[in-house]
Amino acid sequence: MKNFNFSNKTEIIFGRGSERKLGKKTKAFSNKILLHYGGGSIKKYGVYDKVVDSLKESGVEFIELGGVKPNPRLSLVKEGIDICRKKDINFILAVGGGSVIDSAKAIAAGVSYDGDVWDFFDGKARPKEVLNIGVVLTIPAAGSETSAGTVVTKEEGWYKQSFGTDELRPKFAILNPETTFTLPPYQTAAGAVDIIAHVMERYFTKVSNVDLTDRLCEATLKTMIKNVPIVLENSEDYDARAEIMWAGTIAHNGLLGTGRIGDWASHNIEHELSAIYDVAHGAGLAVIFPAWMQYVYKQDINRFAQFATRVFGVEYDFNDPERTVIEGIRRLKSFFKSIGMPVTLEELGVEDNRFEEMATKCIEIYGDGLGSFMKLDKEDIIKIYELAK
Amino acid sequence: MKNFNFSNKTEIIFGRGSERKLGKKTKAFSNKILLHYGGGSIKKYGVYDKVVDSLKESGVEFIELGGVKPNPRLSLVKEGIDICRKKDINFILAVGGGSVIDSAKAIAAGVSYDGDVWDFFDGKARPKEVLNIGVVLTIPAAGSETSAGTVVTKEEGWYKQSFGTDELRPKFAILNPETTFTLPPYQTAAGAVDIIAHVMERYFTKVSNVDLTDRLCEATLKTMIKNVPIVLENSEDYDARAEIMWAGTIAHNGLLGTGRIGDWASHNIEHELSAIYDVAHGAGLAVIFPAWMQYVYKQDINRFAQFATRVFGVEYDFNDPERTVIEGIRRLKSFFKSIGMPVTLEELGVEDNRFEEMATKCIEIYGDGLGSFMKLDKEDIIKIYELAK
Repeated sequence: MKNFNFSNKTEIIFGRGSERKLGKKTKAFSNKILLHYGGGSIKKYGVYDKVVDSLKESGVEFIELGGVKPNPRLSLVKEGIDICRKKDINFILAVGGGSVIDSAKAIAAGVSYDGDVWDFFDGKARPKEVLNIGVVLTIPAAGSETSAGTVVTKEEGWYKQSFGTDELRPKFAILNPETTFTLPPYQTAAGAVDIIAHVMERYFTKVSNVDLTDRLCEATLKTMIKNVPIVLENSEDYDARAEIMWAGTIAHNGLLGTGRIGDWASHNIEHELSAIYDVAHGAGLAVIFPAWMQYVYKQDINRFAQFATRVFGVEYDFNDPERTVIEGIRRLKSFFKSIGMPVTLEELGVEDNRFEEMATKCIEIYGDGLGSFMKLDKEDIIKIYELAK
Repeated sequence: MKNFNFSNKTEIIFGRGSERKLGKKTKAFSNKILLHYGGGSIKKYGVYDKVVDSLKESGVEFIELGGVKPNPRLSLVKEGIDICRKKDINFILAVGGGSVIDSAKAIAAGVSYDGDVWDFFDGKARPKEVLNIGVVLTIPAAGSETSAGTVVTKEEGWYKQSFGTDELRPKFAILNPETTFTLPPYQTAAGAVDIIAHVMERYFTKVSNVDLTDRLCEATLKTMIKNVPIVLENSEDYDARAEIMWAGTIAHNGLLGTGRIGDWASHNIEHELSAIYDVAHGAGLAVIFPAWMQYVYKQDINRFAQFATRVFGVEYDFNDPERTVIEGIRRLKSFFKSIGMPVTLEELGVEDNRFEEMATKCIEIYGDGLGSFMKLDKEDIIKIYELAK
C-alpha cells in the first residue's frame, strides 16, 4: 500500500425529496448564484421547477446559464466566467450530470484568474481561488458531484482535457434517485459503464497489498452488475436506481484509489474518441476498456484472474489461469452488450482511418508512456484501437 | 435504502513517516494546543518524541495532559476542560487510540459549555461550540479518528455513555501503520474485534435493498479476517498492519451505515460489561456479539445466511438455511478464538451474579427496546448475557 492523503468534504444529501433542501443549503453560501444546466430534460421532467421553487423559497437570486452539451465546451465555460464577473456571482449551482458539473467547475476556477482558463487544462497554471459549487445530480455516471476533477473540450482542434484540485470538490451534492427514472436506457447504460470504468481504472494497479481497496472496488462493481439490468427492465425501480447513484459517487470520490496508483489509459484513449466523434463517454469506454484489458493483461495474470473470479464468479482455472482471465474479459464484454452498449468501434460508427491521429493526440496531451499499469506508447495505443475495431 | 446525509470532513494522512506532517497540520489551526495522551507506550516506543519534535519544529506551543485510561474517565475530561480554559487553548491533539481521542472530544465539547460536560452524555444538552481536534492514531480499533462520537465513563456509579455530533469529527488524522507494530497481540486482536463489530452493527439491519453497503461491509470484514492472523504471526508486517488500520477507519467513518439503520445493541450490552469489570471493549464484544447473533438471528434468516456465505464462505444450505446461519456464527466465534479473544464471559472473568444489574443499567441508559434489528427488553438482555456465559 502506498502512502496517501484522503479527504472528501462534499456533503451528500441523498434520497427521495432531497432537492427540497437545496434552497437552504445554497443560501448558507450565497444569496446570488449562477444556475448552470444543460438541455431541456431538467425542464421537461420537473427538476428545474423544483430547483427554482426551492431557491425562491429561500430567497436566493439566480442568473441562468443553460446549454451545456455532453463533452462540455470551453466557449460556454468562458461565457459563464464572464457572467460571474459582471454580475459579481460567487457560487455556482450545477443541475445535471457530469458535463454540467465539469463546466461549473471550470467556470468556478476561471472567474478570479486573469489568463485563459484553458491554461489550467494545459497544465500551465493552477487556480488560486475557486468559487464554491453546489450540485443537484440527475445522471449517475461521471462522479463529478464529489470528485476533484473536471473535463472540458476545447472546440478549436477538439481537445478534450482535464485537470483537478481539491478545491473543485462541490460543497454539497443533492442526489435523488427519482430524478434518474426518466433517463433513457442508452444513457443509463453509458453512465453505468463510466462508473464501472472509474472503479476498474483504480483496480488495475501495479501496487501490491491493496487488499481492502481491492475488495471495496469489487463490491462496487458487483453492485453495478446486479442493479443495471434491473433498472433497464424497470426504469422506476427506486432501490436499484439508488444503488447505482450511490455507487457512482463512491466509484469516483477518491476512496477506492487510496493507497494505489490508478491507470487511466482507457479513459485517455477514449477521450480522443469522444473529442473527435462526440460519442457518449460511457459508450466509448465500453469499447476501449475490454480492448485495453486484452492488450495488457499479461502484465499481471493474477490481478486479472482475481477480477474474473471475484467480480464475475469465473471459476479459477488452476491449470491455466490465463483462461480465467480471458473468460473474465469475455464476461465483461458480454455484460456491456447485455445492457445495450457497443463493444466495437464499428458499432460506434468509428472507422479505422484516424487511429494514428487519435494516438498522436493522446501522446501529445498525456505524454509518452500513457497509463501506469502498463506504459503505452503511440504504437500500443494504435494496437488497442485495432483490437477495438 | 433510507434517505441519508453523509459527510466526513476529516483529512486522512496515511502511511510511513506521516507523523512528520503533524507540526504543519497543527499550526494551520493553532499555535497553542493541549497535547493529550494515555500511558507510557507512546513514550516507550518513540511516538511521543516524534510528535514533540514535529510540533517544536513548527513552533507550536503545547501543554500536556497524559494519563488517559482505557474506558476514559470523566474526571480527566474535566481536568482537560479546566486546563484549556485557564490556558486559553483552542485546539486539542490526541495521540493514542480511541480512549484518548474520545477523551479529547469530550474536552473539546466541554470547554465553552457552562454546565457539566456530562449533560451531553446524558442527552440534557447539545454542545454549541466544539474546539478543533487533531489525531495521531496508534491503535486501530475505535474508529474515533474520524467518527462523530465519543464514549466516556463516569466513575460515580460507573456509567459508560456516549454522544455524537458532526462537529466532534477531528480535522485531521495521521495514521502511520508502523506505530502499531508494537501493539501486543491481545490489544491488536481486541482492536480488530471492535472494528469487526462496528461493521456488523451496521450490517445487521432491517432495512432492505442495501446492496452496495452490504458489499462494502463484507469487503471490510473479509479484509480483517485475512489480515489479523498475519499481524499476529508477524507483528511488523507493514502491509497487513496498513490494511487493518485503514479498515478501522472505514468501518466507523459513517460510509458503511449510509442508507441503513444500525443496531448497536451489542455495543450497548458490552458497555455495561466494561463499565463494571473494566475489560477491554473488543474482548467484551467478542463475547457479546456472537451471543446476540444467536439470540436474534431468527428475525431474518436470509441476512444471517448472506453473512455466513459471503463473509465466511459457508456453502449455502438450500434445504436448511438455518444451518448456514449457525455455521456462520460458529465460524465467527472460531475466528475470535483463533486470534486469542475470549468467547465466553467466564474467560473474561465475569460471573453470572450481576446480569440483572447490568441489564437494568442498559435499559436505564438506552431506554427499553435496545437495538434496532430486534428491540430488546431487560429480559432479552439477561438472556443474551446467559448465552454468553
